[in-house]
Amino acid sequence: MQVKKAQVRSGAYYDSVVLMQLQRSLAGLPGVLDAGVVMGTAANKEILAQTGLLAPEAKAASADDLVIVVQAEDNEAAEVALGRVDELLARRRGGVEHEYLPKSLDSAAQMLTDAHWVLISVPGRYAAGVTRQALRLGKNAFLYSDNVSLDEEVELKQMAAEMGLLVMGPDCGTAIVNGVGLGFANKVRRGPIGLVAASGTGLQQVSARIHQLGGGITHALGTGGRDLSEAVDAVTAHQGLDLLSRDPGTRVIVLISKPPAAQVADRLLRAARSAGKPVVVDFIGYCPPSRQTDALHFASTFDEAAEMAVQLAQGSANVPSRPQATDPDLVLALEQFAPGQQYLRGLFSGGTLAYEALLLLQDYLPGVYSNVPLKAEYRLENSLVSHEHTIVDLGEDEFTVGRLHPMMDNDLRIRRLLQEARDPHVAVILLDVVLGYGAHPDPASELAPAIVEARAAAQEAGRFLEVVAIVVGTDEDPQDFRGQMQQLVKAGAHVETSNDAAVRYVGHLLQALAPKATLENRLVLTPVDLSVLAEPLAALNVGLESFAESLEAQDAPVLQVDWRPPAGGNERLMALLEKMRG
Amino acid sequence: MQVKKAQVRSGAYYDSVVLMQLQRSLAGLPGVLDAGVVMGTAANKEILAQTGLLAPEAKAASADDLVIVVQAEDNEAAEVALGRVDELLARRRGGVEHEYLPKSLDSAAQMLTDAHWVLISVPGRYAAGVTRQALRLGKNAFLYSDNVSLDEEVELKQMAAEMGLLVMGPDCGTAIVNGVGLGFANKVRRGPIGLVAASGTGLQQVSARIHQLGGGITHALGTGGRDLSEAVDAVTAHQGLDLLSRDPGTRVIVLISKPPAAQVADRLLRAARSAGKPVVVDFIGYCPPSRQTDALHFASTFDEAAEMAVQLAQGSANVPSRPQATDPDLVLALEQFAPGQQYLRGLFSGGTLAYEALLLLQDYLPGVYSNVPLKAEYRLENSLVSHEHTIVDLGEDEFTVGRLHPMMDNDLRIRRLLQEARDPHVAVILLDVVLGYGAHPDPASELAPAIVEARAAAQEAGRFLEVVAIVVGTDEDPQDFRGQMQQLVKAGAHVETSNDAAVRYVGHLLQALAPKATLENRLVLTPVDLSVLAEPLAALNVGLESFAESLEAQDAPVLQVDWRPPAGGNERLMALLEKMRG
Repeated sequence: MQVKKAQVRSGAYYDSVVLMQLQRSLAGLPGVLDAGVVMGTAANKEILAQTGLLAPEAKAASADDLVIVVQAEDNEAAEVALGRVDELLARRRGGVEHEYLPKSLDSAAQMLTDAHWVLISVPGRYAAGVTRQALRLGKNAFLYSDNVSLDEEVELKQMAAEMGLLVMGPDCGTAIVNGVGLGFANKVRRGPIGLVAASGTGLQQVSARIHQLGGGITHALGTGGRDLSEAVDAVTAHQGLDLLSRDPGTRVIVLISKPPAAQVADRLLRAARSAGKPVVVDFIGYCPPSRQTDALHFASTFDEAAEMAVQLAQGSANVPSRPQATDPDLVLALEQFAPGQQYLRGLFSGGTLAYEALLLLQDYLPGVYSNVPLKAEYRLENSLVSHEHTIVDLGEDEFTVGRLHPMMDNDLRIRRLLQEARDPHVAVILLDVVLGYGAHPDPASELAPAIVEARAAAQEAGRFLEVVAIVVGTDEDPQDFRGQMQQLVKAGAHVETSNDAAVRYVGHLLQALAPKATLENRLVLTPVDLSVLAEPLAALNVGLESFAESLEAQDAPVLQVDWRPPAGGNERLMALLEKMRG
Repeated sequence: MQVKKAQVRSGAYYDSVVLMQLQRSLAGLPGVLDAGVVMGTAANKEILAQTGLLAPEAKAASADDLVIVVQAEDNEAAEVALGRVDELLARRRGGVEHEYLPKSLDSAAQMLTDAHWVLISVPGRYAAGVTRQALRLGKNAFLYSDNVSLDEEVELKQMAAEMGLLVMGPDCGTAIVNGVGLGFANKVRRGPIGLVAASGTGLQQVSARIHQLGGGITHALGTGGRDLSEAVDAVTAHQGLDLLSRDPGTRVIVLISKPPAAQVADRLLRAARSAGKPVVVDFIGYCPPSRQTDALHFASTFDEAAEMAVQLAQGSANVPSRPQATDPDLVLALEQFAPGQQYLRGLFSGGTLAYEALLLLQDYLPGVYSNVPLKAEYRLENSLVSHEHTIVDLGEDEFTVGRLHPMMDNDLRIRRLLQEARDPHVAVILLDVVLGYGAHPDPASELAPAIVEARAAAQEAGRFLEVVAIVVGTDEDPQDFRGQMQQLVKAGAHVETSNDAAVRYVGHLLQALAPKATLENRLVLTPVDLSVLAEPLAALNVGLESFAESLEAQDAPVLQVDWRPPAGGNERLMALLEKMRG
């Protein structure tokens, strides 16, 4: 008989890589069917419950507690597994061994005096403190940690701004400084394009595309996703823009963000205009009054931003925007799908890729539910349960407390993929697979088997499941770009290297699958006979005589009515007359 | 001694052309300095007060009363003038004389049986009744009248839709059916482009530009400005789109409107996509998810919409959007202006031209006040009193009760022009001059002298006043397009034929005149030293070891900190430690 057993350890701190490795080790022990190792936050306990792993002992755990759950074939296997936890935790994980590791930032700074950067990825509640320490030491901070409060962000950035230091983040996924990628970053050619981005995967998609187009990057400066909010006032973006405008190697600047607060956008665009260099702006979903003003060029997708930047770097003064034409040869094999299959489930690791997908899908679908929706009415009641068309950003803070980011750990996404595949209304699953430094060393090796399993399960149930994967990367990335794509294609996925292209393909497919009823107009219109346009115009004119004169001047037959207000303008009498006419 | 005398006539109905003519006749009588003839609405009485014409007798007049005010050199001249009112009203106005005019729509319909259209421009309160009559007679309605309620519009349009008839309007300024212009319409070449527009002057600007570019029009169908609201649900726009999609002469469709309600836009764009023809969409200020999807092409200005339509009609499949470059030779003679001159006053007759101007000015100015503002916070407290940068739509309902539209009657605009010119903070006055059928036969003859007077008054006060005029028209319009422009140029105006170009010129000028303080950033940033980018990257890593491994893989010096939560994760102790560090 299957059993579920749990252990709760209070006040224990472990690196989330260690937790992931413990979970995998436990799941691999004899007789163990599944395992969960998480910090005991409400969100994490709900995820455990969803996957059938919330053992009774775990229910009372608090956010500071480490929860270890094992599901095993029998009681003995479960007990044995839990008994090995200490041993497994004590094992040093593979990878680089360090002879001596300093215990504090201060002593580390004394050991590596050249270091002018500190990378910070400790749990959110400790992150502000470490960042403050780094600033006091005169270091710039790459602050990867999320779950840092807005107040703390404001305080840290103002402190940094006064000191002439940078705080990239919190929740800054990506940067490239002087050719070196920090956090999640693709390996891209060096060149004359500098980026400032309040978006990690947006920065990755644009820099990878620039590389694919033959262009290159000076620096790519992340700001963290909230930098362009009213409270933070784009401190880091202003600093980045200022740096790149002074940087002699940068000839073109690209600015990427979700739409900023209006006042913030206003000031930032003024600063961009006086940068003295062309600036490509992709405020994803932002509506610029015009597409180009002076040296500002507005792009509406990541792909377009990359293309514009490469063209401007080649010396084009005006860059025509790229019209988005549909592949005329696109054939949709709709007959493969079973009746009722009509919904999308997008499972993203990249927050801004998810956001761009939501925006682009507006062209095709009436509304897409999400944990990061475009409109409040489309917010998922529960991020763990999809509804109709859904896109989930699995990299959101709610999913990453005491858990690795989905770009590093595929576990949560694979579980969700299999869950969505069981829904008979689901037609398409959309995934991003982001490569580069910092990301999982071989994501396709884990995702491909899951895709095969999901598609097979659907097929067994008489359905067809289209899995679409966007692979973001370059041919110089450590993961082997082509090899990753090949694994996914072999698993039956439709693979694209552009979010834009993938989402439009999905949009077309779902639009074609949509039940016709939803496309109908609410109105019952009796078609107007074409003779209204085809016949020579002739009219009666009631009111301004000058209108009749105009028609006469145009040789159109017209008759002026010598109109007077009915009932001499008496309103009551007018109403009475009107009623009598029925 | 100057005197003001008024006469109030209850329940009297006169065509607003008649009222205008009476006002002009009175003002031309010996000893009369000024005259006002209006229906006694609150708005009209306020306008009288503004121009010093609100005689005590007029204050109590109600909306149904005709108010006649005379300002004269002495009592006698005033009395004589008022004594001639009946005689002046009795005079038949010039223009076309009709031998016999039918008194009712029914009898008119029997007299001109070919007429399948009724043009309606009676006062708003009577307009719905007349339209209902027209529909009952099986006629399509061109409903120019404004001040018709939304409920009435919904009712009329649903009635029409069921009967397969069109109701263009209410407040529909412009249409071209089978080559014949209705209401205000420019004379344009016939050709393969069909328009559906919820905007009169938008339709005029686009159709005139199409003509200027060598293109031509099949039909241009107005819908009235509220057609794309949620309540009306775009009934007329759907009918128009459907008609043009079936019309064999129409190869390209242009759809123009202010941004519609989201659901309405959604359905209308679906309909446009299945029109089977390319559709250029200019939902002025609307932010499309992408600039082109299948056969939908989004334009962001009237000029661009016209250019796209002409190119598509010539057979281009993809139309690159036109980047808006600034004229590199633009020289702004800023030294002519006196210190403190910094504001814009835009006095528009075309509502949608005013709206486009507000949108485009977002590129240049922090905020523009208006009676039709983009954001509620910029609504003028009083439409008759400008504040800082202001754009007034003088064709709004509030100004047109018992008064001719400003495209026909320049009186109100000239008074306002002279008033604005006296404000020492005003630098630029922006006017639209819309030509075509229905409009004033020679607007420049009245506006040019007023421009001369306004500029002279400013000069006398030691200031410089830039007057910018947008002339919307074609070389086939009855007014003589070139002659109109020449008159305005001679008066010292800067003349453009494109709203876009004029507004951008004004934007550049005002931006250059803006006091520098408003451009400053609120933040005090200590510049970050460029060495942060230029030096080889070296870092300390606190948190995920995989980030240190990435740096090592990139040959960047890195030192991992063996970090543990401070105070063993004890929050109170942490706070205490933090305080001690200060």
